[in-house]
Amino acid sequence: MADALKVGIAGLGTVGASLVKIIQTRANELAVTCGRAIEITAITARDRNRDRGFDMSGMAWFETPEKLAAEADIDVFVELMGGATGAAADSVRIALERGLHVVTANKALLAASGVELATIAEEKGALLNFEAAVAGGIPVIKALRESLTGNTVSRVYGIMNGTCNYILTKMEKEGLSFEECLKEAQRLGYAEADPAFDIEGNDTAHKLAILTTLAFGTKIAADEIYLEGITNISIDDILAAADLGYRIKLLGVAQRTESGIEQRVHPTMVPHDSVIAQVDGVTNAVAIESDILGELLMVGPGAGGNATASAVLGDIADIAKSQPGAQRVPVLGTPAVALAPYQKARMRSHEGGYFIRLTVADRTGVFASVAARMAENNISLESIVQRPKPAQTDTSKTIILVTHATTEASIRKAVEGIKQETYLVGEPQVIRIERPRAS
Amino acid sequence: MADALKVGIAGLGTVGASLVKIIQTRANELAVTCGRAIEITAITARDRNRDRGFDMSGMAWFETPEKLAAEADIDVFVELMGGATGAAADSVRIALERGLHVVTANKALLAASGVELATIAEEKGALLNFEAAVAGGIPVIKALRESLTGNTVSRVYGIMNGTCNYILTKMEKEGLSFEECLKEAQRLGYAEADPAFDIEGNDTAHKLAILTTLAFGTKIAADEIYLEGITNISIDDILAAADLGYRIKLLGVAQRTESGIEQRVHPTMVPHDSVIAQVDGVTNAVAIESDILGELLMVGPGAGGNATASAVLGDIADIAKSQPGAQRVPVLGTPAVALAPYQKARMRSHEGGYFIRLTVADRTGVFASVAARMAENNISLESIVQRPKPAQTDTSKTIILVTHATTEASIRKAVEGIKQETYLVGEPQVIRIERPRAS
Repeated sequence: MADALKVGIAGLGTVGASLVKIIQTRANELAVTCGRAIEITAITARDRNRDRGFDMSGMAWFETPEKLAAEADIDVFVELMGGATGAAADSVRIALERGLHVVTANKALLAASGVELATIAEEKGALLNFEAAVAGGIPVIKALRESLTGNTVSRVYGIMNGTCNYILTKMEKEGLSFEECLKEAQRLGYAEADPAFDIEGNDTAHKLAILTTLAFGTKIAADEIYLEGITNISIDDILAAADLGYRIKLLGVAQRTESGIEQRVHPTMVPHDSVIAQVDGVTNAVAIESDILGELLMVGPGAGGNATASAVLGDIADIAKSQPGAQRVPVLGTPAVALAPYQKARMRSHEGGYFIRLTVADRTGVFASVAARMAENNISLESIVQRPKPAQTDTSKTIILVTHATTEASIRKAVEGIKQETYLVGEPQVIRIERPRAS
Repeated sequence: MADALKVGIAGLGTVGASLVKIIQTRANELAVTCGRAIEITAITARDRNRDRGFDMSGMAWFETPEKLAAEADIDVFVELMGGATGAAADSVRIALERGLHVVTANKALLAASGVELATIAEEKGALLNFEAAVAGGIPVIKALRESLTGNTVSRVYGIMNGTCNYILTKMEKEGLSFEECLKEAQRLGYAEADPAFDIEGNDTAHKLAILTTLAFGTKIAADEIYLEGITNISIDDILAAADLGYRIKLLGVAQRTESGIEQRVHPTMVPHDSVIAQVDGVTNAVAIESDILGELLMVGPGAGGNATASAVLGDIADIAKSQPGAQRVPVLGTPAVALAPYQKARMRSHEGGYFIRLTVADRTGVFASVAARMAENNISLESIVQRPKPAQTDTSKTIILVTHATTEASIRKAVEGIKQETYLVGEPQVIRIERPRAS
């Protein structure tokens, strides 16, 4: 049997502690499967004295991640601290420069510096694996980077934030408001005390930026993502969507268009009978549409200590199963030097169907005026209905429009036009419709 | 750049021809991604002179697969002929004995001889990749063999036969009979002229046998699978299932139980709001439940020239990206020498819920008698209803039972008891219920 693979771990929070326990309790099975033992020989974390529920003997303790990365006698540096900058970024750079393989679950770091880190890794002949960084336990990185080799991807999209999906599912199933569901998510530990990063879509955007690069072979462009969170989604939207045969999900979508790559994160209406519409609660899902394979959808746990640790372990095992320096899997699917510049498709050029919910004064001619605004902008309507609202005791009413495929620019112009009208009460709600290719 | 990877292909049907065209038209992208060119240097097929729509110059033609495997100047032997024995089996053996890497889409060959072939491959340091053999374009082999390393799998199940899923979906959506839908599947090329291999469940069983070994580390036991096809499923079953919130799918299920591994292929009721219930038409889906990762579900095309070629190409690309002899991924997830004997769990010990549909004479006391038979066998009922059948003009009526979890032995005994009763008309229909872990 080959020499043991020596692993150093920086960060012993939920994921790190899970990982150590799994590697320790399954040492024999792992050695058989990988053809060599996996040994944790070095660790570091903020607090040395905390009891983490595992035996630390045989592991060298380092005061800082940077010191561990620079000095430990290891083959693989596992970064589980998080953060786009600081110790996580510095220690990963140091490890790669030393020619060590790196495994990380750090989406923020990859979204910010993935190309730079991939370049170092590929120059040094090191592997940089990050399955856990996107959609937790779902092996979407492996699918894009390995299984789909040779395919031209046209679209990748998914539910990549468990907090948002939990809130939207609960709103629909229990008829509760956004605020009530957010509170429940916080109580259950699904949402942070400051939930902005999740519910505003930033977390999804980081993951999407990584998927875009893997799917389209373009440089990471995490700052070029159209972003709309779910704070604005009301129970009225969810009920109207259900009536029309749709569910609302926060999707990250990256899509090849004639004018470039579209990257967007926003609440989206998906057909009720599509598979992705049935993905509920904190579960994640990622769909990949490509020209040879067709559509592939993967559904699984997007977060949690064990699911994340499982993905990290899979990455470590891949390294254990290959000879040192023998693997040439490009970190980002395409070798870093061959990544194309990111060419942004303008959001105004986005094409698709739209759901529009208007609250209007209850007077004659409103329907006709709304329809006329749509027609002026060449927007063809699939339906235009007045939705009764039981609690609506005032004189306003709700109009719901669903359009056939049109452009974002046309919709914005039409909505601007409607906003000029005196019958409009409050802000119009506009939600994009996304259809799986098959449906 | 490293030397080109030289590929020999045996079999130039739909999949083989797709593969050659893809490798030829995407030569540049593949060379960049893989770090070396992929070149098809040798081919063989039944008919040399057929026009297959690609340029064969530069490819050495061999009269037989065995000759190609034995003599061609290649690094990888790709077997796309099919069949558990004969030329496919012989040529794969010859190639592996020579130390060549092998890629195959041949589920029958693997189900019959997978352990023997894996043993040769591992002795010779060759790779044997077969992503296309199970669920076509869905990367389930990679997920089990690589991503889930270190996990203990408790159950793997899926929709792995497009023909059956197409027929069951069409029966439900259009209210047609099994025979009508089979004819339509044959017209569309989804079913063979002799459909027995698909509709009796044998095709699913081959795939399941391979997944069982990857999931549980036991030797392949394709002959130890409980098998029940879909020919017996009537539109009445489908409608009754829908009424009760279920859909009927032909599933292959392998499950760890106290007495061993259960392998079974049969029509199954899945909850309507589960993700797998929404997988329609010829699409396949595979779910894997494991202790660390949780539940992973993958949905995608299970067949077709392009989807299969994509999976084969992914396998070839994995070889291209690694140095010769550098990979130690065990062919069947566990090294062949370390596979455990298959310990069969008896079908009579199977535990789960059941759906039972009885046609009975319309007389007093039948409900009570049926309920008593269940109680005698300690079967607890979730529901027992009489279902009106519009076309039922005779004096019989339909009784539908749904049980809580019980054993197959108890159900068989209860059904035997009911068969003794004089009120029973025709054969009772018994369909097992399968629940995703999350639901």
